[in-house]
Amino acid sequence: MHCTTAVLPNYNYNGTIMEKLEALFDHIAARVNVNLKPMGIDVRPLLKNAIPRERHLLYYAFYALTEDHPISFKFVNSNLAGSYFLGKTQVDRSVLYKSDVRGDELKQKGDVVEFNGVKTKLFYDEVIRIINSYLVKTLIHNHSKNPQIPEVFRILNTVAMHYSNIHGTTTEGAYLGAFSTVDLSVLHNCVIGDFSYVQAGDLSRITIEPGRVWLRANGLFEFNYLYPEGVVEQYVKLDENGKLSGKFIDYVDDLKEDFVPIYSTATPESIIDIPDSAYVSPYAVIKGTCEIGENALVVQRAHIENSVIGKGANAQENCYIANSIFEGNNVTAHGGKVIWTRNGQNVFVGFNSFVHGTEKNPITIGRDSIVMPHTIIDAEEPIEIPENSAVWGYVTRQADLETQCVNLDELAKATDVTLGNATFKGDGKAFVEAFKHRIDHIREENGAYFDGSDKTRGHAQKTQDACFNILQPFQAGPDAGMYPTMTIGN
Amino acid sequence: MHCTTAVLPNYNYNGTIMEKLEALFDHIAARVNVNLKPMGIDVRPLLKNAIPRERHLLYYAFYALTEDHPISFKFVNSNLAGSYFLGKTQVDRSVLYKSDVRGDELKQKGDVVEFNGVKTKLFYDEVIRIINSYLVKTLIHNHSKNPQIPEVFRILNTVAMHYSNIHGTTTEGAYLGAFSTVDLSVLHNCVIGDFSYVQAGDLSRITIEPGRVWLRANGLFEFNYLYPEGVVEQYVKLDENGKLSGKFIDYVDDLKEDFVPIYSTATPESIIDIPDSAYVSPYAVIKGTCEIGENALVVQRAHIENSVIGKGANAQENCYIANSIFEGNNVTAHGGKVIWTRNGQNVFVGFNSFVHGTEKNPITIGRDSIVMPHTIIDAEEPIEIPENSAVWGYVTRQADLETQCVNLDELAKATDVTLGNATFKGDGKAFVEAFKHRIDHIREENGAYFDGSDKTRGHAQKTQDACFNILQPFQAGPDAGMYPTMTIGN
Repeated sequence: MHCTTAVLPNYNYNGTIMEKLEALFDHIAARVNVNLKPMGIDVRPLLKNAIPRERHLLYYAFYALTEDHPISFKFVNSNLAGSYFLGKTQVDRSVLYKSDVRGDELKQKGDVVEFNGVKTKLFYDEVIRIINSYLVKTLIHNHSKNPQIPEVFRILNTVAMHYSNIHGTTTEGAYLGAFSTVDLSVLHNCVIGDFSYVQAGDLSRITIEPGRVWLRANGLFEFNYLYPEGVVEQYVKLDENGKLSGKFIDYVDDLKEDFVPIYSTATPESIIDIPDSAYVSPYAVIKGTCEIGENALVVQRAHIENSVIGKGANAQENCYIANSIFEGNNVTAHGGKVIWTRNGQNVFVGFNSFVHGTEKNPITIGRDSIVMPHTIIDAEEPIEIPENSAVWGYVTRQADLETQCVNLDELAKATDVTLGNATFKGDGKAFVEAFKHRIDHIREENGAYFDGSDKTRGHAQKTQDACFNILQPFQAGPDAGMYPTMTIGN
Repeated sequence: MHCTTAVLPNYNYNGTIMEKLEALFDHIAARVNVNLKPMGIDVRPLLKNAIPRERHLLYYAFYALTEDHPISFKFVNSNLAGSYFLGKTQVDRSVLYKSDVRGDELKQKGDVVEFNGVKTKLFYDEVIRIINSYLVKTLIHNHSKNPQIPEVFRILNTVAMHYSNIHGTTTEGAYLGAFSTVDLSVLHNCVIGDFSYVQAGDLSRITIEPGRVWLRANGLFEFNYLYPEGVVEQYVKLDENGKLSGKFIDYVDDLKEDFVPIYSTATPESIIDIPDSAYVSPYAVIKGTCEIGENALVVQRAHIENSVIGKGANAQENCYIANSIFEGNNVTAHGGKVIWTRNGQNVFVGFNSFVHGTEKNPITIGRDSIVMPHTIIDAEEPIEIPENSAVWGYVTRQADLETQCVNLDELAKATDVTLGNATFKGDGKAFVEAFKHRIDHIREENGAYFDGSDKTRGHAQKTQDACFNILQPFQAGPDAGMYPTMTIGN
């Protein structure tokens, strides 16, 4: 009769309707549809069907508590499900289902930020604000690049489907498809197709088709790639009733039982040897024989099996790593999947990329190379990616690299390039440098360069003393599925 | 490196001082000592030594969430350790160590209460307020009998030691010894000795010696019993450094490992068959072969082993029941221990009573009998307590009942009685009726008489849908051991 991760409480489904939660779904659907219906999107059936209602009772939310992350949470009778919070947050009757809202890079009052060469000082500590949104298994990371109000990282009336990522953005009234990513971005009333990746600045009333990878820095450069017809659907497909299918979700679903023992434990503990300078979240799965190097970071909801995470390497939320080696200073971004792959020093695997080797057909990625966000490398033969390269698109054989891989030094000299389905326009040097700079920033923030000094401390060091507090929703009555109103501060 | 119930985090003890927690201890000691030092009490060494500091990091607090108990918690950077909350609470930098603060009988705005024949209506919902107190393994139950401000159930600058109980009271600036109880009571600047029980109305600047059991209804009746010299010390002794010894703590300590798996689980579940109308808290231990009857209630921190909890019977916080049978409608009050005992219908076992039979020397208690609070029956031969009796004091053999047991009908006819160490003065009928009325009220509140109607619902029914939310303290830095400031409401 109690909340549990193993057995469904049946009385709610044999009787009580989750009144307030249903009303909340209706409200969100109306708000989003007002803007997106003219663009051909009706989110109502998705909200109705995508998550079985009893799951909203089943999961608990949790938030981390550390000395390094001043918290200020405010949840107003929301539904939070498996959310993870760290840092200043405000949530108002939102549905956050297994979402991560990280506030570990929030700017502070007095910080100076620069947008397009204009400097501005923050009036207040930056907060994350999420109102009436529906975020399902979504990762929100708050390295905000919003010039409008740098104090507030907003997500209003936004519907974000399974395993989509929101990174440093305003995102108002948008719809994000499954496994899609909006990066460093300001969006208004946009539709982002399944497995699309957009890093294109201020967008409004645009529909991005599934499988587009689009990076744009206004006036500087633009990269554009569209998956060939029929490819994305094999990996991810969300039907109009919110049912998700394809190889991505199959892969993830096969491993989801591994998380059950962790989430059943009040204070889970890491079971392997971790160097003092590294951090492995107790909410990550570490399976088989794994090695964790110094300054490494493995965060909550990462799944690591029989792999080596080298010195200064990091594995981010929702990433899946199996039978792979990371030689050091690697970044596997949110949702990246790396299987039977040897990654040289500094290799970066972007958001939601699927780098899938097998024992017979392993993948090797040379040092300093970049696997672009939303790349699929599904090896049908052994594949070797040369060092200092960028690789993108859909690669199943070595020969595919001819049109989907480029040496970074060559790219830096280029202006206009068309290679297969990809086009690049603009300043190649700026593009390569922006990428390298960002990867380096990620390593720095994560503590990869920690040398014992306070200045070099990053997430791997700052999160070490975190405790996790567990929040559960009401189990019965009209409030079932909703959480009490909470204000939590320092 | 994370909080856990199994391994001590050592970095706090090898380095960081828990600055804010130490400052809080100092502050509480000063406040309590101001009033109690003239009465011979210095709580400073107790606060310094009674609980190893790392335990304040180790345990987590939890609170229950149900539709039936509107919550409004406010914790201001407190230490809460293993506290359990249910209902409206305010805590301000208090130390609550494994305390239970139950708010399941809080009165509401508009409720009419009667004190000494005068009726008054509540202006606000009643709240529990605990400021700068030190409550260790203490149970606070809030059926308040405070005529001064019925809206606020206060406990200010109070130091309450291991397994003491506070029941419906103001309790300002008091010191409560180990296993002591203050019941339905208003205390100001009092010292209550180990294992003393006081139900005596408004008290001020009084010292109660260890092992006194004192019930008084002004002008109506008075019961007084003092344990023979040398007895209480065998069962409970708290030295001036806060070290606790004796048979009570030995018994409890032997069983404390049983609670570890429960507190290590995020959402523990009951493992035995429980009737729909009964409630067994997931935070209770149920061990061996147990039977739970309809309308029965077993609450958090109760420990039940190889026993039958009959229809409408209840087992309250910190009670230990082993190899015993309760035939129905029984009450085992907070801290009651009942071992190898057959309890007839309606038998009541009072606060912290120790009814200790053995397989060879079992105890039988006839129906409708009352084991007075703080009674020790430590059987050296089989003992049979007749039905409809009151039993008190220190009983090891059948013959001891001659001076420590009386038929309730006879007591009801009495005015002045002296029996062994016990004296009774006043209106016997009023005494017996008050007792029976109260026991009946407990059964009613606990839902023992539930017949499916809303009117008869009690705790056993209202707590069924409870979820438990887990709070953990900061693990490092000056805040180590303290909790964030939290406001939690509906």
